[in-house]
Amino acid sequence: MKERAIILTHGMLHTNDAKTAHGLIRGTERFDIVAVIDERHAGTDAGEVLDGKHRGIPVFAKLEEACQSIPDLRWVIIGIATVGGILPQDLFEVIRDAIQRKLSVVNGLHDYLTSHEDLVALAAASGVQLIDIRKPKPRAELHFWTGKIHEVKVPIIAVMGTDCALGKRTTARLAKEQCIAQGIRAEMIYTGQTGWLQGGKYGFVLDSTLNDFVSGELEHAILEAAADGAEVIFIEGQASLRNPSGPCGLEFLISGCAKHVILVHAAKRIYYDNDEHWGRIPPVESEIAIIESFGSKVIAVALNTEGCQLQEAYHFQQEYEGRLQLPVLLPLEQGMAPLIPLIENLLQKSRESAPQ
Amino acid sequence: MKERAIILTHGMLHTNDAKTAHGLIRGTERFDIVAVIDERHAGTDAGEVLDGKHRGIPVFAKLEEACQSIPDLRWVIIGIATVGGILPQDLFEVIRDAIQRKLSVVNGLHDYLTSHEDLVALAAASGVQLIDIRKPKPRAELHFWTGKIHEVKVPIIAVMGTDCALGKRTTARLAKEQCIAQGIRAEMIYTGQTGWLQGGKYGFVLDSTLNDFVSGELEHAILEAAADGAEVIFIEGQASLRNPSGPCGLEFLISGCAKHVILVHAAKRIYYDNDEHWGRIPPVESEIAIIESFGSKVIAVALNTEGCQLQEAYHFQQEYEGRLQLPVLLPLEQGMAPLIPLIENLLQKSRESAPQ
Repeated sequence: MKERAIILTHGMLHTNDAKTAHGLIRGTERFDIVAVIDERHAGTDAGEVLDGKHRGIPVFAKLEEACQSIPDLRWVIIGIATVGGILPQDLFEVIRDAIQRKLSVVNGLHDYLTSHEDLVALAAASGVQLIDIRKPKPRAELHFWTGKIHEVKVPIIAVMGTDCALGKRTTARLAKEQCIAQGIRAEMIYTGQTGWLQGGKYGFVLDSTLNDFVSGELEHAILEAAADGAEVIFIEGQASLRNPSGPCGLEFLISGCAKHVILVHAAKRIYYDNDEHWGRIPPVESEIAIIESFGSKVIAVALNTEGCQLQEAYHFQQEYEGRLQLPVLLPLEQGMAPLIPLIENLLQKSRESAPQ
Repeated sequence: MKERAIILTHGMLHTNDAKTAHGLIRGTERFDIVAVIDERHAGTDAGEVLDGKHRGIPVFAKLEEACQSIPDLRWVIIGIATVGGILPQDLFEVIRDAIQRKLSVVNGLHDYLTSHEDLVALAAASGVQLIDIRKPKPRAELHFWTGKIHEVKVPIIAVMGTDCALGKRTTARLAKEQCIAQGIRAEMIYTGQTGWLQGGKYGFVLDSTLNDFVSGELEHAILEAAADGAEVIFIEGQASLRNPSGPCGLEFLISGCAKHVILVHAAKRIYYDNDEHWGRIPPVESEIAIIESFGSKVIAVALNTEGCQLQEAYHFQQEYEGRLQLPVLLPLEQGMAPLIPLIENLLQKSRESAPQ
């Protein structure tokens, strides 16, 4: 049975900085998410703040209130991922409070709880765990790239994007779930801390991996999924090829041999990370051209419709389908059913090319 | 004064696995390299093994012999960089011996000396240092990308390559030295452990940096070089955009704002890392096209002429100049003087576009 967990979002529940929380609110096989702590959104439902859908996850102003109204709490999860990964100073007090209330804490920031001796001592005294998801693995547990990936014959699809925080993980997760609903054994390779929090079986936390081992950890995760019988493998992408704060993506295409790509694009987003100083996001056409210059094929675009009315979302879908001559998905508005014929097509081709 | 150091190459002095040693034999401002230990090449001169040029660096079979013939030794440097960065087991005995002879040890592999408790204890007893160049910096010393790079107005030139271990660092170093000889204040950003060993002032070890901080560490190093008055900045590239064991390069173009590229290509190399299983290196034309699709300009190609007779090298130079319509340099055969007009042209343009 999944253990009960609450998420701290520190006034940021409505922002992209809370994308870890958003993923957990959408669904996790690892925890039972029963509340969010966020003073700014206290009294609402976390699902409604996220996307207007009620999910029965109340938002409290204070940890104390959640502890008073909900029994059997076991975990507190830090649900924000700030630039550079530093823990806001005032969240420390909340964490101390949580530990004293005998709650274990999960942290996905680069600022490790286990590096703070006072928290370690407090946790030991309370008999609770401190889990730093982003703490790098020791060298002995890291894999270097071997080339065995070339033996994987099932379709590998990277879910990449034209920016950070626009739904690559959610798109990959929905794609996997849709395939499974259709009887296709799909697996997802997570590459961020939220993927682990959601209970991902195959993957690693890319941005806290020593650069030399990124390709090998990716290959290893894909090999594991393939060995367990996956018929199609979706890779959760990270950042984007041209996001200046950390370009990412060639690993999936080159080392992960993802010969197919679903490209997520935010129709109304103008600047990388919504920051004018970081530069304009180039047209999606140029992103597709670059991806295809590496020998992979973009099989569909998935639109992030942040800031769009429903009609506007459909309008963008039509416009992009016309411009790109590609299937354009609206994962949140329409689900992923339109992806299935594309996947079946890839499966058919991969069966035809397999040795008899 | 530089302290005396000897290099261990473990029978690999003639191979690309000893590229750390090769860089040190070519030159370092941090150490005075007085010998190499390599049973296979004992009795030769290390420079002659490298490229036929005598450099007065004798090769000994055993550490003991070097210690007997050379006074005032202070350092032993592990001069090999094997795939995955694991220290060969039998080198450990040599390292133990070195420590007992009161030599400090520098290690550029992912296998940290300071993780071996017995070596740490032995070093403490002998009063010597163990330096693990590739040991990741603590979080507090790491920089995240900020965008301040956009304020740097001097030309930034990435020295990229079509594969690993083909002379990117050497080309960058020679380019910097040639500029300085012509009175141009050039600086180099090192991105590998050999750059540090050579005495590099600006840089970081890319492959042992947590992925999230690669772009920020790069930006920070460039900002430091620019603040110290560099007129032109060369970035030592790593790997290549399509090397499957670890594609690398977008960081330099996108996060480091390198709008100019010198592309190093090995005329006779067929496979990535000379390993058929890793795949063929695509034509240099396609590498140039990909680099330029990211908005940077390849200003010259530098040829690695491994396995070429001198006449063959000149023939390749002519052939590539004809095919690519670009200046083609032979750094080891002809030096970097032909680069200077290109650099002066960039400096002229950057002066013209600077505000008065």
